[in-house]
Amino acid sequence: MVIQREIHLQTSGHGEMTDLTGELEEIVASSGVTTGIANVANLGSTGAIGGIEFEAGLERDLPEILDRLIPAGRHYGHEQAWHDGNGHSHLQATILGQSLTLPIADAAPRLGTWQQIVHLECDVKPRRRTIVITIIGE
Amino acid sequence: MVIQREIHLQTSGHGEMTDLTGELEEIVASSGVTTGIANVANLGSTGAIGGIEFEAGLERDLPEILDRLIPAGRHYGHEQAWHDGNGHSHLQATILGQSLTLPIADAAPRLGTWQQIVHLECDVKPRRRTIVITIIGE
Amino acid sequence: MVIQREIHLQTSGHGEMTDLTGELEEIVASSGVTTGIANVANLGSTGAIGGIEFEAGLERDLPEILDRLIPAGRHYGHEQAWHDGNGHSHLQATILGQSLTLPIADAAPRLGTWQQIVHLECDVKPRRRTIVITIIGE
Repeated sequence: MVIQREIHLQTSGHGEMTDLTGELEEIVASSGVTTGIANVANLGSTGAIGGIEFEAGLERDLPEILDRLIPAGRHYGHEQAWHDGNGHSHLQATILGQSLTLPIADAAPRLGTWQQIVHLECDVKPRRRTIVITIIGE
Repeated sequence: MVIQREIHLQTSGHGEMTDLTGELEEIVASSGVTTGIANVANLGSTGAIGGIEFEAGLERDLPEILDRLIPAGRHYGHEQAWHDGNGHSHLQATILGQSLTLPIADAAPRLGTWQQIVHLECDVKPRRRTIVITIIGE
Repeated sequence: MVIQREIHLQTSGHGEMTDLTGELEEIVASSGVTTGIANVANLGSTGAIGGIEFEAGLERDLPEILDRLIPAGRHYGHEQAWHDGNGHSHLQATILGQSLTLPIADAAPRLGTWQQIVHLECDVKPRRRTIVITIIGE
């Protein structure tokens, strides 16, 4: 079986983390797949998908460490060509990853107790986001 | 066909790298799938899965570079909330990735000659780990 | 359905980015799969696969930021064992990732308008590369 659904988000801007786990659980439960995989993919190159414990500390820490490692700046080639202030957004989303794939068991995403699947807005302004969920299994 | 198996590990603590390739090869060979994909997923948010040449140099280098880029510290929001000393563990595992998917061909993982699939313990203490292998193909 | 194909590249050396999207679109279109996933995997541990807007600015920025975060150097354990000058290449490819999985919808890769799938050569010399595309769906 192959089932494809979308999650739609309105983000508030750079560094906003959104927990997708609840919606993902509902999509998996209603898919009819009990064993398989779910691919979670952000459409667009300045939003990322990651696995993390979703709690207020790490919600602040992940965008902070990305901004420290890959800071905003005018020196990026992307900036010099496009002047849209989001060169670092692209690089952060590429390095964190724009999609991930996780196992499904017993008709649910198979995750650790404190392991959630999140969207991280890396772009510098609010964005409407489409996240494509593709479930394959039996 | 969809086949799901688990690999169980006892890690010794932060920075321990374990080569999963041999066990993964056995699981793929016994699955009956000759062409497809294998998803390898760590349960829990402080362990990572990666592709790397498994040799003593890189076994030291990967945790060292992660500790240089994302050092342990009291300044993380996660630390201030939970005081368990593993804020950097969470961030390292999220950025490296907690799962990956690789091709299967001729009833074996399709990898380069010096390309292995490893678990990296990012947490600060020994952990029992469950790694879920999901194989889909024909 | 499970379809597996290969893309072959000759890279020019460290930091060369190659857009795989066009060839990937052709492979998906000819696979007969309309809904599903495509796994894109570099064979070998010093080449990476990523999602990024493929334009001249970011084509320069991504290898530059990787070289700043994970610079070449003699201090890596890998260097001290193998003396092949590519310790940083291994670490860059592991952290960026050697494979990714993306959704297929309407017989095409489902991507944002400015979101491409690329190969990044992290090794220090020109390499012949094999990229395995595995398509699963219906």
